[in-house]
Amino acid sequence: MHLGEMPSAPYSMIDVHHCAFTQTNNIVGTLNILYAMKEVCPQAHLVKLGTMGEYGTPNIDIPEGFFTIEYRGRTDTLPFPRQAGSWYHQTKVHDSHNIMFACKIWGLRSTDIMQGVVFGTRIDEMRNDEKLLTRFDFDQCFGTVLNRYCAEAVIGHPLSPYGAGHQKRGFLPLRDSMQCLTIAIYNPPKEGEYRVFNQFEEVYSVTELAEKVAKVAVELGLNVNTSNLENPRKEAEEHYYNPDHNHLLNLGYKPTHDVEQELRIMLKDLIQYKSRIEEKKEALIPDIRWDGTRRKSRFLIEVNR
Amino acid sequence: MHLGEMPSAPYSMIDVHHCAFTQTNNIVGTLNILYAMKEVCPQAHLVKLGTMGEYGTPNIDIPEGFFTIEYRGRTDTLPFPRQAGSWYHQTKVHDSHNIMFACKIWGLRSTDIMQGVVFGTRIDEMRNDEKLLTRFDFDQCFGTVLNRYCAEAVIGHPLSPYGAGHQKRGFLPLRDSMQCLTIAIYNPPKEGEYRVFNQFEEVYSVTELAEKVAKVAVELGLNVNTSNLENPRKEAEEHYYNPDHNHLLNLGYKPTHDVEQELRIMLKDLIQYKSRIEEKKEALIPDIRWDGTRRKSRFLIEVNR
Repeated sequence: MHLGEMPSAPYSMIDVHHCAFTQTNNIVGTLNILYAMKEVCPQAHLVKLGTMGEYGTPNIDIPEGFFTIEYRGRTDTLPFPRQAGSWYHQTKVHDSHNIMFACKIWGLRSTDIMQGVVFGTRIDEMRNDEKLLTRFDFDQCFGTVLNRYCAEAVIGHPLSPYGAGHQKRGFLPLRDSMQCLTIAIYNPPKEGEYRVFNQFEEVYSVTELAEKVAKVAVELGLNVNTSNLENPRKEAEEHYYNPDHNHLLNLGYKPTHDVEQELRIMLKDLIQYKSRIEEKKEALIPDIRWDGTRRKSRFLIEVNR
Repeated sequence: MHLGEMPSAPYSMIDVHHCAFTQTNNIVGTLNILYAMKEVCPQAHLVKLGTMGEYGTPNIDIPEGFFTIEYRGRTDTLPFPRQAGSWYHQTKVHDSHNIMFACKIWGLRSTDIMQGVVFGTRIDEMRNDEKLLTRFDFDQCFGTVLNRYCAEAVIGHPLSPYGAGHQKRGFLPLRDSMQCLTIAIYNPPKEGEYRVFNQFEEVYSVTELAEKVAKVAVELGLNVNTSNLENPRKEAEEHYYNPDHNHLLNLGYKPTHDVEQELRIMLKDLIQYKSRIEEKKEALIPDIRWDGTRRKSRFLIEVNR
């Protein structure tokens, strides 16, 4: 199970040094694992964390890794084209190409997980054991969007979708991520097989998710505003998005459909650490821009709820 | 004009160290250039040497970089999927993704050259000036197939297609390569445009080319055999291959259609250096295998001509 990569898009966009570090670290790390497998344990199954961000936002449906197409009267099954949106996301694209090639020439087996955006503070196995609480990032680099919204809600900071807020992505709770990775492990591919799982529960726009967080936060007595921020990224804010996600469902994945219940757990967990979020609240406003400059994003519009 | 990469597939396949060096060197070198352009000369035009090997050998026609397809009733124009056949070729795929992204987010302009296999000893501008003679590689790592055939013909070593010899590739003489790169420079893309040129004169199988070399060599009084070698690579030996190559023709590329005349020039040039090839003739037999081992390829069948 290879989760050991630098995981932040904004971090990779800071400058040439962060870009080169991210690409070298992620690509060479995966190449080292592939060679180690080939030399030591060629029967092992590599479960590798990629990202749904590898695909970008094409104007057609997104299959799971491969698609069969007709072109000028002939047919082939080909890797689905990748159009990633940051130097970090590009590393996952490069990894995917490298892993596919290693499986082909060396007969290795791998599941490449195109994971959606993860959110959550706990999995069932933690019970109420404080020692098992996981790291929780809410800064611009390592905090994903729902983690940031929940941290914002807890301290009365406006929920802050980037730009128009119509960007759609696949999302899944941390507990679903663990369930899916477990399913991948227990259902290995055959020798030489490189397969791709699109791993998410459902597609939402980042505004829909802000609305869900606001609703649950208000129920818990929190005072919530939403105010869109200038988008520090260069990305399509209006786009078609319809990715497949059948492979894991076919293998028995039972999605947590109750996102609001998951958000309720998160907010209750985070309320206990409110003072720590308060201390670092300046981390909530992004300043790393896709053009390589540093400038804090301004709020665009404020909507009282 | 960025030609500064480690250019050998077999070299990249030697072991994990050569693999990691190749990927780091090529990818980070190109990233450094992209950042330098962004910061110093964002209006510059990057002409970048990729390879036809980025595409692999799909069972459909290969367009120039992008194709418009219908999938489940919707249409989009997408990057053509890449299926490269070595760690070196993969670096060119990774570069292509990185350059495309830099053009998109920073408005840079680039021509990504998917070049076929180059052969030849001279360009017209050299005239007969010995000082201008270019490096000529004929070893397994840096010698491309036609260079190797000609070196073999000159010293009476069997011409040695790999495997079945039915692998098809796009080829072009060195003088055509220079002509095409010049055309790319004089016809820059517009701001933010990332374009792809498939740069080759014609598609041949490696056996067809051995036959051409043999024919011309016999005319020059050389004694020529052909004997296929065990293929040290893992590659399809029977496949469909029909790549487009219109972009450069539309801009005025005049191909050297007379491959035999080009081979005649090469052989005459090389005959003068016969003793140097003799000295290093053990370099003609490949021993770097795609499975990571080192073992000299054996001859499969011998055909006297």
